[in-house]
Amino acid sequence: MGRTRVVIVGAGPAGLTLANLLRQADIDCLLLEQETREFIEHRPRAGFIEEWAVRELERHGLADRLVERAQTHGKFEFRFEGERHPFNYAELTGQRHFVYPQQELVKDLVAVYRGEVRFSVSDVQLHDLTTEPFVTFTDDEGHHRIDCDFVAGCDGARGVTQAYVPANIARHDYGIGWLALLAEAPPSADGVIFGIHPRGFAAHMARTPTVTRFYLQCSPTDTDADWPDDRVWTELHARLTVSDGKIIEGPLIEKRVLDMHNYVLDRMSSGRLFLAGEAAHLVAPIGAKGMNLAIHDALLLAEGIIAHYEGNESTLDNYTAACLGRVWQYQEFSQWLSDIFHGSPDPFQNELSRARLRRLLGSRRAAESFAEIYIGQRADF
Amino acid sequence: MGRTRVVIVGAGPAGLTLANLLRQADIDCLLLEQETREFIEHRPRAGFIEEWAVRELERHGLADRLVERAQTHGKFEFRFEGERHPFNYAELTGQRHFVYPQQELVKDLVAVYRGEVRFSVSDVQLHDLTTEPFVTFTDDEGHHRIDCDFVAGCDGARGVTQAYVPANIARHDYGIGWLALLAEAPPSADGVIFGIHPRGFAAHMARTPTVTRFYLQCSPTDTDADWPDDRVWTELHARLTVSDGKIIEGPLIEKRVLDMHNYVLDRMSSGRLFLAGEAAHLVAPIGAKGMNLAIHDALLLAEGIIAHYEGNESTLDNYTAACLGRVWQYQEFSQWLSDIFHGSPDPFQNELSRARLRRLLGSRRAAESFAEIYIGQRADF
Repeated sequence: MGRTRVVIVGAGPAGLTLANLLRQADIDCLLLEQETREFIEHRPRAGFIEEWAVRELERHGLADRLVERAQTHGKFEFRFEGERHPFNYAELTGQRHFVYPQQELVKDLVAVYRGEVRFSVSDVQLHDLTTEPFVTFTDDEGHHRIDCDFVAGCDGARGVTQAYVPANIARHDYGIGWLALLAEAPPSADGVIFGIHPRGFAAHMARTPTVTRFYLQCSPTDTDADWPDDRVWTELHARLTVSDGKIIEGPLIEKRVLDMHNYVLDRMSSGRLFLAGEAAHLVAPIGAKGMNLAIHDALLLAEGIIAHYEGNESTLDNYTAACLGRVWQYQEFSQWLSDIFHGSPDPFQNELSRARLRRLLGSRRAAESFAEIYIGQRADF
Repeated sequence: MGRTRVVIVGAGPAGLTLANLLRQADIDCLLLEQETREFIEHRPRAGFIEEWAVRELERHGLADRLVERAQTHGKFEFRFEGERHPFNYAELTGQRHFVYPQQELVKDLVAVYRGEVRFSVSDVQLHDLTTEPFVTFTDDEGHHRIDCDFVAGCDGARGVTQAYVPANIARHDYGIGWLALLAEAPPSADGVIFGIHPRGFAAHMARTPTVTRFYLQCSPTDTDADWPDDRVWTELHARLTVSDGKIIEGPLIEKRVLDMHNYVLDRMSSGRLFLAGEAAHLVAPIGAKGMNLAIHDALLLAEGIIAHYEGNESTLDNYTAACLGRVWQYQEFSQWLSDIFHGSPDPFQNELSRARLRRLLGSRRAAESFAEIYIGQRADF
């Protein structure tokens, strides 16, 4: 196949953002994706994009459809002990989430991309990353080799590129599961509800007028077979209903137990290979941080590669540190929030979780500090 | 001995504050203390009193000497990775700590108390707490019985009154030790330094021009025999020294390994017995919260008993809930701060601790939220 400047492995939000930014800077790249275009444009994943990330995409002309079509959320509601506790973080920060399914963002980013892309590739292998890199892969036209200056590993937690970085991996397992549900039911309330209950955490997220997402804390070893529909609704009612807020039922069209664990690699590059997004770090969906981190990495990696071709290596040299600063802030936030959501079987720790929630609802300063990191911002802390 | 209205067991900050407030309201009481007056007036313990607590004592005429003689602190310094990071919480909150050794406060509160007190008592026993309470005890004049309306259990973590409350006790053990040290050395810096270091936490607290307190994180099973003077100074230098901030040595006049654990009873009363201070809850000295909680309990208990004699029971009925609200906030804060101070042997958790510290130093909102609870306030959260 010859030569390109950057081979990007994986057409998720990280890979597609990077590919678009590189092409805007007239840097040739080749995007490789193991799935079909049809598949990635319909795979349901994350849905909450922080305003700073939207503004960054918008600045590069990558968010026109998103800004036009997304709902924005600036508040949510805690429910516990039968009471509703609204939390308006837009009022505290001036910023909001854009609620836009990941597959829609993928669709938009594929549509505007003006570069080479191959779908349905397999057997991707990276070679000579510290000298003259090249990538080999197979598609329906045969086996290929392409030489390049850089490889961007954007192929997620189960991708192939992570293994090429000799990193130490720090891991955390929450020891719980989340059952992710989609119901063909109208929203039971405006936006997001976090239900904190002795039976376990539950959440409600309004999606469309006819489809609503729910989550239920479950055992980490549960499968969807452990959750027949009547059990799902019994638990959702028990954990989320308050006297003036019923939960509306509907056919369940998705049931999936999510992996509730985190990991972070201590280096995100090796030679000419740079990882971005979940190839380098995974954060359980507790704080809706994963896609935002992927976009953050892609922005920094694009800046670094563009700077390289302008003769400046320092941005790329600082890539791991710049990414991981935010990654660890969001990991810390997610674990802090997990303690509130899930409590603890240990009575002392459980009281600490309750104290944390009471302070969040009772102290303006605690609420402001929480809101700042819940919605995130462009600058690092 | 006849009859009094309130028997107070224990002449620490909680018992003495309560005794003074009751006598100011013309409520008779008897204060029982197992140690001598000489002993309690010279027993070194806590030293940091939050401004709201000072103002409450002052309002009752109990803080004249304290306000006149105490130093006030409104800032401290983190040291880590060889750098100094000053943290000015007075600027963020308008409030300060009063640094005043507990034994000095005890001396003041004994001196102004105008009621009955017996020192060096033993064999204190409580009787008929749900009907017609009485207390028996022994002193050098013999064995006594005194009838009363209320018993206040202010005799600390190793006292006798706790056992009379059928409570569930939630516990937390930090799994570390703190070696508490007093050195006959001038302060090495202005005020408080918290040293965060891979070898473990260390702290410096200026006391007087000739005496300085230090703490060193150690193994929980260590005794002072494990810490000869040269090891102490080697570790203090390693953990606290920065290029422009040396640690000044001097003879070590105290070496003591502190219990680093917490507990909280889920009820602080039984019949006519009410616990206050460490009889009801212990917080490791990480955030200097213990004496402040004891004073808070004593203020609430005095209000409740005074209200009782005015015909209003609701304050006493709400006593446990009112105390424990603040207790759990301070426990939560102490554990949060412990994670920053001590890090973790687990790499993932250790990175979270570092992220927390970086955010505290980098985010104004995070700093304001921290400062608010570090200095505390009268109102509950």
